[in-house]
Amino acid sequence: MPEGDEQLSLFGEETAPPVVAEDSPPREKKKSKTDPGASPGVRSTAEKMATRQKDISVSEFFAKNRHLLGFDSPARSLLTTVREAVDNSLDACEEAGILPDLTVELVQKKENRYRVVVQDNGPGIVKAQLGKIFGRLLYGSKFHARKQTRGQQGIGISAAGMYGTLTTGQPMRITSRTSARKPALEIILAIDMAKNVPVVKKEREVEVEWKHGTVVEIELEATYKKGKHSVDSYLEQVSLANPHVRIEYRNPVDAEPILWDRVTNELPAEPKEILPHPHGIELGILMRMMKETPSRTLSTFLCTEFSRMTPNSVEKVVETSGQLAKKPILPEKNPKRFSGPEIELLHRSIAETVLMAPPTNCLSPIGEELIEKTLSRNFIADQIFSVTRAPTVYRGNPFQIEVGLAYGGDLPGDDLASVYRFANRVPLQYEAGACAIQAAVVSVPWKNYEVSQSRGALPSGPLAVMVHIASVWVPYTSEGKKAVAHYDEILKEVRLAVMDVGRKLAVHLRRRRREADADRKRDYIKSYIPEIGIALQDILGLSDPQRSKVIESLAEVLERSRKL
Amino acid sequence: MPEGDEQLSLFGEETAPPVVAEDSPPREKKKSKTDPGASPGVRSTAEKMATRQKDISVSEFFAKNRHLLGFDSPARSLLTTVREAVDNSLDACEEAGILPDLTVELVQKKENRYRVVVQDNGPGIVKAQLGKIFGRLLYGSKFHARKQTRGQQGIGISAAGMYGTLTTGQPMRITSRTSARKPALEIILAIDMAKNVPVVKKEREVEVEWKHGTVVEIELEATYKKGKHSVDSYLEQVSLANPHVRIEYRNPVDAEPILWDRVTNELPAEPKEILPHPHGIELGILMRMMKETPSRTLSTFLCTEFSRMTPNSVEKVVETSGQLAKKPILPEKNPKRFSGPEIELLHRSIAETVLMAPPTNCLSPIGEELIEKTLSRNFIADQIFSVTRAPTVYRGNPFQIEVGLAYGGDLPGDDLASVYRFANRVPLQYEAGACAIQAAVVSVPWKNYEVSQSRGALPSGPLAVMVHIASVWVPYTSEGKKAVAHYDEILKEVRLAVMDVGRKLAVHLRRRRREADADRKRDYIKSYIPEIGIALQDILGLSDPQRSKVIESLAEVLERSRKL
Repeated sequence: MPEGDEQLSLFGEETAPPVVAEDSPPREKKKSKTDPGASPGVRSTAEKMATRQKDISVSEFFAKNRHLLGFDSPARSLLTTVREAVDNSLDACEEAGILPDLTVELVQKKENRYRVVVQDNGPGIVKAQLGKIFGRLLYGSKFHARKQTRGQQGIGISAAGMYGTLTTGQPMRITSRTSARKPALEIILAIDMAKNVPVVKKEREVEVEWKHGTVVEIELEATYKKGKHSVDSYLEQVSLANPHVRIEYRNPVDAEPILWDRVTNELPAEPKEILPHPHGIELGILMRMMKETPSRTLSTFLCTEFSRMTPNSVEKVVETSGQLAKKPILPEKNPKRFSGPEIELLHRSIAETVLMAPPTNCLSPIGEELIEKTLSRNFIADQIFSVTRAPTVYRGNPFQIEVGLAYGGDLPGDDLASVYRFANRVPLQYEAGACAIQAAVVSVPWKNYEVSQSRGALPSGPLAVMVHIASVWVPYTSEGKKAVAHYDEILKEVRLAVMDVGRKLAVHLRRRRREADADRKRDYIKSYIPEIGIALQDILGLSDPQRSKVIESLAEVLERSRKL
Repeated sequence: MPEGDEQLSLFGEETAPPVVAEDSPPREKKKSKTDPGASPGVRSTAEKMATRQKDISVSEFFAKNRHLLGFDSPARSLLTTVREAVDNSLDACEEAGILPDLTVELVQKKENRYRVVVQDNGPGIVKAQLGKIFGRLLYGSKFHARKQTRGQQGIGISAAGMYGTLTTGQPMRITSRTSARKPALEIILAIDMAKNVPVVKKEREVEVEWKHGTVVEIELEATYKKGKHSVDSYLEQVSLANPHVRIEYRNPVDAEPILWDRVTNELPAEPKEILPHPHGIELGILMRMMKETPSRTLSTFLCTEFSRMTPNSVEKVVETSGQLAKKPILPEKNPKRFSGPEIELLHRSIAETVLMAPPTNCLSPIGEELIEKTLSRNFIADQIFSVTRAPTVYRGNPFQIEVGLAYGGDLPGDDLASVYRFANRVPLQYEAGACAIQAAVVSVPWKNYEVSQSRGALPSGPLAVMVHIASVWVPYTSEGKKAVAHYDEILKEVRLAVMDVGRKLAVHLRRRRREADADRKRDYIKSYIPEIGIALQDILGLSDPQRSKVIESLAEVLERSRKL
């Protein structure tokens, strides 16, 4: 991999007005705030204040508020950078139908400086898009799509690059190739923060050995640590929820790379985009859609722009409106001609009409078999169980819960269970205490399943629980993919899924206990058999061989009875 | 106040491409993802994926991620809307040198719908800026200024308007007047979310009784509640930290308005803008500044664009650089000609050179006298104490801590102390557990000050503690002004300030205890004086009047001894 230290001249010639002159007053001394013409005591006027109002670039906003995006400490910044690059790589590979091969490398450059290098074998990125995807905040293809993807915002990877440049002065380097018939393109890229546009510092064709894919390199101020919130732990968890992915990982301390090989050669089913479900739509959005639709009648509008709306269900909505108001809604009226109160009536009528739940082919669960396979690869356990529940719906959004459980073996027995949380195959590593998944696992009556649990706590024992929620729109509690919000429907589904695997575990543990009990009993009796032999010899006057035979047959009877 | 229900046609004719057609696939059925020309298994290609990439408008981003800005529940949305309007009004009044008169009104329109009306007597807003300030996210004057203000982002009030329109379909109404010589202007305003630009639906001159100021009206989906996180509590706290403000408040349940009158007719000292301090600058920003400066030499650049840099301190930085590297920095070199490694050396040299702390006239504390006045107005207490500490610095940012304490009287004695947290005079109502202010109050050894306290908990007793941090840049832990980050310098200053008032309280409580002890003793002896009189009468053979006189003088002696 090429390794460079291009130096800067950041933020290109084209950066129009000197930002510093705007950012802070040019000369502290010359600045006078008292206006001789103004009335005494007046510090400023509406007119003077108007001259200071101006646009704030979205890049500057996020640079100043970087904690919103997960860049609040050097350790977390390293993790966030890797996450954003890996999420993008996996989404791109899957969208192109390619089994993902990833390499992730962390190279220590100085005491608090690391270079993150993430390479994928994805479809590559065409030249015209390269700069924008990595050098512009709020740009991408996933924000508007109602589809299960890892990324949602179009902001993560460019923010990572910006953070790197801010803290080290180093631009990003992106190398991408879209086909074996074309050369790879390498660009050195920064973000013009004042305008939120990419600044390509250098661009050249390079020779590479791989046929297609993208390499992202970002140098940033960071610290590398092991532990629960580490990059190591993140990648380990990615491998759990992504059985079709091969990851090779080199961290800055271990001599050997870590490899998680794929356990399947099949890609997950491709999630389909769906239209919005009418029960999830807000009044303001409905108004806008009705204004902008090309449809000529309300009925056509509803049937073409929403899922599960048919002429039949439109009729039901009209019926409901007739119960709610004197004048029912007219389904043949042009949607552009509806008045505000009429749209409000329509909105209420939709909310109060029973409609079919949204289609669930927009979801792509991992599946029970593959969950068990990755758990077996990553853990040395006695028993592994899994369950994938049927999809269901919250607020018009389809979602689906899966749970895997590993028990015994090398898992530490004197600790609380480890809970691994995933949303759309992305590990959630922060704020477990605020997460609906964790709450649901705690709410399960583990004692019923032969696992000890203190009141209000996680179960304890040699136990690892993995929970995956797949959804078109995961309701995170806050920025940065940390925890899932406490929707009743989600809590209930996770609880039911965990109880499913809990019952499977209980069957196993009960059988094991019965066997252990029987073993103990047999051992106990067994130790008395020779004594019984001697006693019988005495009573019945047996010969020594006869006594041996009696002992033998008693042992056999015991063995048989245990097996029944 | 005019009251309207203008109905929409939101988002103006000028909204270019139909957003719906972009947001979601126009026809689910027609969309085909299989490309006959592609190799089998290939779902998409770099070229096809490129066509789906596009810009995401900042309005759409925040509409979808509204929890980032404090619109995550109907109750919180109401509070956030009022907060944003009130913060803006107070900042504008103070900037114009006007004593703020605010009225805040919450009108219930439907079960879950309220209209928020906030009026100020500020300088008003000129016509050309009205639309942008309220109808565009990331627009304003405070983001770039290094100055103590309530608002920091240029995003709050327009986000509130957007949230209102999204949930109720109602646009904002803004009425503003800049001078008694001009008429007031009323605009009905929405945000074009696809472009993040204001859409003025109507605009007209209106007759109003007031001479200058602004009225903001936003209708939104919300719930009104009393309690710690309520609008009532927020305004009560605003009045504590803003002694110069008069607030009249009408909530939807109480018949009478609540009034907090001002306790001073003087405005707070005007905070000054300052240049950045060299110890707070990041490498990437320094690189950009050096590229964009009009200065011809490094020395001039440093002295004009940073605070506390003089030819003398530049010399010190150069000296440090000579210790760090073979070749020291050349102060006469053109800043544009510095190489990357040279700028890095400069950055390190600045960090390792002792420099004067930044100027602190950028801060505007409340002051001890006024803190005591507002506490006396808002609480019926026996004792009130306050302290304003000298300014100090964290990471190049000046800050200053103030603490007020009310004790006894009507404050509930059997509860934990109430802690009121403020940053730049803005109440912080959420996430007390994550806040450095709360942590510092807990860390104080309250038992030393005669106040009971359980280990690791707030003190208990009839106690209200108010803590104010004033700073050019308050380090919030996360979005939405909830909690202050745990910087050591801040923790220490808050702790010291609270200990100051704690000591004052202790002096009072000890004196009170001594008095109570003496009272008890006197009462005890007093009850024996008549008996002593009788005994003396017996022993010395006194007459009844003599006995009465002895009793009287004994009581006098006792009284005198108690007073010593």
